Amino acid sequence: MPDAVTPSFLDSIRAIVGDRGLLTDPNDTAPYSEDWRRLYRGRTPAVVRPATTRELAAVVGLCARFGISVVPQGGNTSMVGGAVPAEDGSELVLSTARMNHVRAIDPVDMTMTIEAGVTLKAAQLAAAEAGCLLPLSISSEGTAQIGGVLAVNAGGNNTVRYGNARDMVLGLEVVLPDGEIWNGLRRLRKDNTGYCLRQLFVGSEGTLGIITAAVLKLAPAPREIAVALCGVGAVEDALALFTRFQAHDAASISAFELMSGLGMQFVLRHIPGASLPVETPAPFYVLVELATPRPNAGLRAMLEGVLEQALTDGIVSDAAIAESEAQRAAIWKLREEHSEAQKREGASIKNDVSVPVSKVPAFIREATVACEALMPGVRVVPFGHMGDGNIHFNLEQPEGSDATWFLAQDHAVMDTVNEVVRRYDGSFSAEHGIGRLKPYMMPDWRGGAELALMQRIKAAIDPAGIMNPGKVLPEEPAL
Amino acid sequence: MPDAVTPSFLDSIRAIVGDRGLLTDPNDTAPYSEDWRRLYRGRTPAVVRPATTRELAAVVGLCARFGISVVPQGGNTSMVGGAVPAEDGSELVLSTARMNHVRAIDPVDMTMTIEAGVTLKAAQLAAAEAGCLLPLSISSEGTAQIGGVLAVNAGGNNTVRYGNARDMVLGLEVVLPDGEIWNGLRRLRKDNTGYCLRQLFVGSEGTLGIITAAVLKLAPAPREIAVALCGVGAVEDALALFTRFQAHDAASISAFELMSGLGMQFVLRHIPGASLPVETPAPFYVLVELATPRPNAGLRAMLEGVLEQALTDGIVSDAAIAESEAQRAAIWKLREEHSEAQKREGASIKNDVSVPVSKVPAFIREATVACEALMPGVRVVPFGHMGDGNIHFNLEQPEGSDATWFLAQDHAVMDTVNEVVRRYDGSFSAEHGIGRLKPYMMPDWRGGAELALMQRIKAAIDPAGIMNPGKVLPEEPAL
Repeated sequence: MPDAVTPSFLDSIRAIVGDRGLLTDPNDTAPYSEDWRRLYRGRTPAVVRPATTRELAAVVGLCARFGISVVPQGGNTSMVGGAVPAEDGSELVLSTARMNHVRAIDPVDMTMTIEAGVTLKAAQLAAAEAGCLLPLSISSEGTAQIGGVLAVNAGGNNTVRYGNARDMVLGLEVVLPDGEIWNGLRRLRKDNTGYCLRQLFVGSEGTLGIITAAVLKLAPAPREIAVALCGVGAVEDALALFTRFQAHDAASISAFELMSGLGMQFVLRHIPGASLPVETPAPFYVLVELATPRPNAGLRAMLEGVLEQALTDGIVSDAAIAESEAQRAAIWKLREEHSEAQKREGASIKNDVSVPVSKVPAFIREATVACEALMPGVRVVPFGHMGDGNIHFNLEQPEGSDATWFLAQDHAVMDTVNEVVRRYDGSFSAEHGIGRLKPYMMPDWRGGAELALMQRIKAAIDPAGIMNPGKVLPEEPAL
Repeated sequence: MPDAVTPSFLDSIRAIVGDRGLLTDPNDTAPYSEDWRRLYRGRTPAVVRPATTRELAAVVGLCARFGISVVPQGGNTSMVGGAVPAEDGSELVLSTARMNHVRAIDPVDMTMTIEAGVTLKAAQLAAAEAGCLLPLSISSEGTAQIGGVLAVNAGGNNTVRYGNARDMVLGLEVVLPDGEIWNGLRRLRKDNTGYCLRQLFVGSEGTLGIITAAVLKLAPAPREIAVALCGVGAVEDALALFTRFQAHDAASISAFELMSGLGMQFVLRHIPGASLPVETPAPFYVLVELATPRPNAGLRAMLEGVLEQALTDGIVSDAAIAESEAQRAAIWKLREEHSEAQKREGASIKNDVSVPVSKVPAFIREATVACEALMPGVRVVPFGHMGDGNIHFNLEQPEGSDATWFLAQDHAVMDTVNEVVRRYDGSFSAEHGIGRLKPYMMPDWRGGAELALMQRIKAAIDPAGIMNPGKVLPEEPAL
């Protein structure tokens, strides 16, 4: 335990949050100290679980006074170690899990006011009950909490249609590094009154303050949904199919997902109940989902029409349209279980990258060649959100290779992929953020004026550097 | 001319931008020194018109070295004096008018890379030529330039469907207060690599840097559009009509505009060729526009269906559906000429405010009562973007009153309106921004933690305070 976190300091914390709000037993704090991917194992003297914004602010204020660093944590589903404390046990974990109330939903204004600790899934359900749609869907939605979802600007499956998490944020409540509360919970569609602070906190990964509540914009609930799984011979064909749907009705595409043939084999091998709805295996697959709030809009007929023409033109080799809710879920499961299936198949190195949509085929081709040249036998299993250019360019260890050896190559592999990403003006972190895994890449990718601006902003808002240290920004000042 | 702006300083500027890029004759600089509404008349020793980002950056770098303040100016259409230099003649005006190239349009990625000096109208046309839609439309679009449109986060008619200017920005190029160029012209749908700087510059009204180019997200071009003008008895009925369209197909509403009966009378009186397409004058009017990229989507039938039912139910008193492109333009003209007609009718005080959509009827009713109590005979002519809660709550001088006397009451009138706005958690500046007109309101409305954060950010990015001084933030530090 660091000098500052004394028993009397913990007593002061307990006086704010009560016994239920403070965990100090190492058995209790351990799950909060390790990330979901098990890349990092930190230590923390205590996990604080405030029940209200006021409690959380008082805790942060106390930490500021004593110079104790805090690590905000929601569902702890970060893919980049964004919510783990340091190994030296000096950082307090601040969990938002108990702040889990939906404060208000307004179906006329189509807004939802919600606390940080509500899971994304619970938020989706609350919106649906009010006849609306919270159009944000990610694999970890059952565990991920709204605070973390906004702190990392989560993306997911529906970005092609609705944008990322930041596009849904009308207002925020944030506890600042000095323990002050900024109440920016406005639910206005237009408000040009000074700098747009909410968009600064969204995506800042808890390094500028802790998001405690938000006003989210909702969308009309879809009344007609049509889903198909298509086999395609190459990623170029997947892009051609995407542009055809765009030409027919770009505004109805709610998801356009790409999977590789090998990735699909992993799913069929490792996930109980998974089965391929098309007859012939293909080199790549596309999951397309169309949706509209208009009843009887003829989406199904449009889907059939586009796919028939694509089959005739040889763009699609085979296609299956879901005939029921169950079939739709089964098709989506093939996509959603990709990460889990890769985990069961062996060790994998993940690259969450993006390029302009039109460059996806060239990127996948060139990155595949480069990785296979770097590491013969490596198994390339790209998948992800083709409609928004975000590919999870994952690599599975060569068959029979040593997992530890393989994972030790992760920087070399990521660098190889990123060289191709750079050629297409892409991003080395599309939707997972920077966390603890990627700050070292920042000077190279976002260096110069951009990183200097970020560092100035960090210094201006968190001068003592107590908010989620070691995340997002590299340790070495670039100023 | 202030001491620093010496003839030799101007020679250095001329060496960067050439003779064409520098105006110093007071006859030439006068139009740049006054705002569109004629609220302010400043003076400037020179107007600099760089042709490229590099030239503009060199000019700013020189100003930084000599401590000269700069006022960025696009089309100079600010409603709040956001682009005028100070009266003391110490500030250089920096016009982006010559930086007017569309650098690239990609119809697959649905993006447009465009320089600050392109007018919004020219940008719309370029997008349309590529088969896409730039879904941002404001009354001043023929003159307003993209740089200014983004600097103030313009809103306009289509926010109900597409959001504000900031929602279209994927990437930015900005010249910083020290003359450095930040090239953030990425055209990615997903990119979570550090703080979202672009959204900080959008809406900062040139006080943090000068936007020189942007990557904008485009939408699919609509293939079916249906427009109607409806008479309604009260604002409550307008809201009821809005919720009916929302229930039928919220995603197809591309504009939902409110006008008052008196405002409409002004248009019919002062605008040549304006005529009312419905038979009976009404207390309020609604313009509804539905649009979809799907061909033959049956929008017209839906519009008719909703309106027939609303007529039956007494929500709408009369309605006219446009039967041609010409009729559509004629209906839109009634809305677009509201500001011009009010100008011709006499002096007016403008309040660009917003409240949650569901609160618009109560706001208009209560603000009307309050203003009529404050100033007997004042003529209340609210109009604007009901679908996003943004009402231009304008007041026309009482008949026969003195215009100068009337305009001298502007602060009292604005304060009266804003008291009602505050009751509904609204905004005192929905889409026009703060400029020089409203910084004094900031401590009251955005004071405490919020304004302190803005001031810290300003100090961090523009420590010398040379970027558009006196705009957005109040002079007195709140820190």
